[in-house]
Amino acid sequence: MQQTRFLLDQKDLPDHWYNVVADMPNPPAPYLGPDGNPVPPEAMLQIFPEALVMQEVSAERWIPIPDEVREALTMWHPSPLIRATRLEKALGTPAKIYFKNESVSPAGSHKPNTAVAQAYYNKQAGIRRLTTETGAGQWGCSLSLAGQIFGLDVRVYMVKISYEQKPYRRTLMRTWGAEVFASPTDMTESGRHILAQHPDSDGSLGIAISEAVEEAAGRDDTNYALGSVLNHVLLHQTIIGQEAKKQLEMAGDYPDMIFSPCGGGSCFGGIAFPFFADKAAGKDVTLVAVEPSSCPSLTKGVYAYDVGDTEGLTPLMKMYTLGHDFMPPGIHAGGLRYHGESALISQLYDEGLINAIAVPQTETFEAGVLFARTEGIVPAPESCHAVAGAIREARRCKETGEAKTLLFNLSGHGHFDMSAYERYLDGELKDFDYPAEAIAESLQHLPKVG
Amino acid sequence: MQQTRFLLDQKDLPDHWYNVVADMPNPPAPYLGPDGNPVPPEAMLQIFPEALVMQEVSAERWIPIPDEVREALTMWHPSPLIRATRLEKALGTPAKIYFKNESVSPAGSHKPNTAVAQAYYNKQAGIRRLTTETGAGQWGCSLSLAGQIFGLDVRVYMVKISYEQKPYRRTLMRTWGAEVFASPTDMTESGRHILAQHPDSDGSLGIAISEAVEEAAGRDDTNYALGSVLNHVLLHQTIIGQEAKKQLEMAGDYPDMIFSPCGGGSCFGGIAFPFFADKAAGKDVTLVAVEPSSCPSLTKGVYAYDVGDTEGLTPLMKMYTLGHDFMPPGIHAGGLRYHGESALISQLYDEGLINAIAVPQTETFEAGVLFARTEGIVPAPESCHAVAGAIREARRCKETGEAKTLLFNLSGHGHFDMSAYERYLDGELKDFDYPAEAIAESLQHLPKVG
Repeated sequence: MQQTRFLLDQKDLPDHWYNVVADMPNPPAPYLGPDGNPVPPEAMLQIFPEALVMQEVSAERWIPIPDEVREALTMWHPSPLIRATRLEKALGTPAKIYFKNESVSPAGSHKPNTAVAQAYYNKQAGIRRLTTETGAGQWGCSLSLAGQIFGLDVRVYMVKISYEQKPYRRTLMRTWGAEVFASPTDMTESGRHILAQHPDSDGSLGIAISEAVEEAAGRDDTNYALGSVLNHVLLHQTIIGQEAKKQLEMAGDYPDMIFSPCGGGSCFGGIAFPFFADKAAGKDVTLVAVEPSSCPSLTKGVYAYDVGDTEGLTPLMKMYTLGHDFMPPGIHAGGLRYHGESALISQLYDEGLINAIAVPQTETFEAGVLFARTEGIVPAPESCHAVAGAIREARRCKETGEAKTLLFNLSGHGHFDMSAYERYLDGELKDFDYPAEAIAESLQHLPKVG
Repeated sequence: MQQTRFLLDQKDLPDHWYNVVADMPNPPAPYLGPDGNPVPPEAMLQIFPEALVMQEVSAERWIPIPDEVREALTMWHPSPLIRATRLEKALGTPAKIYFKNESVSPAGSHKPNTAVAQAYYNKQAGIRRLTTETGAGQWGCSLSLAGQIFGLDVRVYMVKISYEQKPYRRTLMRTWGAEVFASPTDMTESGRHILAQHPDSDGSLGIAISEAVEEAAGRDDTNYALGSVLNHVLLHQTIIGQEAKKQLEMAGDYPDMIFSPCGGGSCFGGIAFPFFADKAAGKDVTLVAVEPSSCPSLTKGVYAYDVGDTEGLTPLMKMYTLGHDFMPPGIHAGGLRYHGESALISQLYDEGLINAIAVPQTETFEAGVLFARTEGIVPAPESCHAVAGAIREARRCKETGEAKTLLFNLSGHGHFDMSAYERYLDGELKDFDYPAEAIAESLQHLPKVG
């Protein structure tokens, strides 16, 4: 029997996170305040514990993973690396296709990798409560689980329309002991302000962030946690790529190309950064961020200072952005509906060190269904983007006869996204036109720096 | 870091199934026809392939697993064995608690273990299509996946009320390429017969079985597949217990007690039978079937010949039964709402070789939530029964100070059962009164033998 599953023992879980900053040709562009001056790290202490702020600005290559965090991670890590031989056969490609299966976490995606680290450092700092926002619910679930593990109360502001449309994600958070509220609420000034203007507001990620940040900023026992974009979040995800590298060694392989969904960037950074270290050392590996054609921040955005949220509460970050008031079309990959991109990934992309492609929604679901029918696992809509990227390349290899080694990040399963599959199978899923006008309009509103 | 996850390599997947018949003190009571005479194996060939019929009546201890089936099983097997140290700590028990994690299959339960074997043998026999019934959808999903793997068309008759209430399970089956119909349909005589009498029928497992069997019996290219109860189904599940035994060896442990949910018996047989072999050889291990208090076939039923379905199409099997027209209360553990019990398990229970307990619904969900909050994974309502059984014993150990080793079968995850958790968390879930009258009534209608 051909070996297709590559498993690591619990003890092989990485003991350090890899910080890509150490291998970047240029230091990261600083976060700026509204006055155009760099934001001092201390300014972030109001809502983040010191350990995370230090990681946010660190240039150390290796940062040790605390034992308690490693122990929590071993509830589902190391995750399997799988050779997708059935998919290869269905495609008739000479390419070898591997995927890292991050859908095995209790919350169903890679998100708990950073949630447990964030919960741990907050607990160490004497914090008793965490607030966060969630859209589709993946991040809210992950933080609920992590809060439960380390004994922190978690309050999730869930975008109201998702709260109503995705009751099962909401129940999952409650099962792990979290409080979940439909945002906008009347519990914060931000929420009351919106409700006064729009009593029937469906909510938005921007509003939910404002509520969560406001509550955390106003209480000493409470901090805020974010699931993507920031440097420390991407850092915590690098166990994915480190493990994949060891597992590919077991398989006697090394990837020519790596594909990952890319929204805020934690999934891409998690698998790609540890291979970027090799690339920086001269190795030939192509790192491909796959984004939705209808929310194409890397492939169609501009590289400029912008805020991370709709309301403009965050510092200015230099990133590829479609403009912070761009409202992405309603694709099912909710985790990729973000106007901007991690500053680290943006800088690497701007320097031509990583690649990006944009894929339309129906192509991603076509890929997801083919994957489910060959490899069994039903991918999350976000993950379907990585599958689609790998399949495009595998088909190209079929034409050219190249036996490339491809690796992609299966970031999560689609068990809570079956309504999207239903619409696809019913032929009701359409591709959105490229929102050129909305993006052009939104880019007019980029904040002035200084 | 303490080792809590015990993983086997792909190559360590068992290469034989274990047939408990070889170690039973008495041969199994034969299946009987309506005339009271044993049913000849040939009679089953109309809807099952010969290889499965031979397994159904085999007394061989070890039956080789074909390479193609092993290869398909390695998509998710060997499954992990996990020491539930966080649960132990939360309970403050001196007991060691291990669980076998069968929720890792693409369909989310142990059911695909037999689905792939059944699909393989049918394909080998030249069959092109499979029909089956499904209630909550676990089995229909598993057979859809297996049909996809071996290139068989699958048609699922899904109980109409589940079809409407569980659209996501239905979509999952379609994602794996199956046709799914709400039963009763107008495509079979059985269906039309019911619809003529009850145009608004919600359907039942009994009706759905009749439709699936009728179609398979009427077409040469089509066979029928069943997800539990029969000997060959339990046989295919014995990879669970065989793996668990190896993994416990890695942990340097051996179980004092094993707990498994028990409805038709495939989950219990899968984990318990390989340990029964040790018990038959003199080892001290207690095997506990955990059933719902509101559908307590072992603990409150009678040991008698009864049919396996509501309509009476199956042979008579000697089993613990509540009577084939007993309609169990609407508990959320749909997979345990079955009037009878596997003949093999019934006989072992009757001979005092295995144990059984019955647990009320709210206790199972209380156990499931505690498990989710400590070990992360949200168990299926059926699996909550095993968790509850193990927790009862662990609490008893706390009182007595015994450091017993407990093992349970986490048969599946609850991702498609979150509405049940929602009701539990909202305090809306009630325990049903023991349906004494309905059972007494139903037991009046046991078929006359001969």
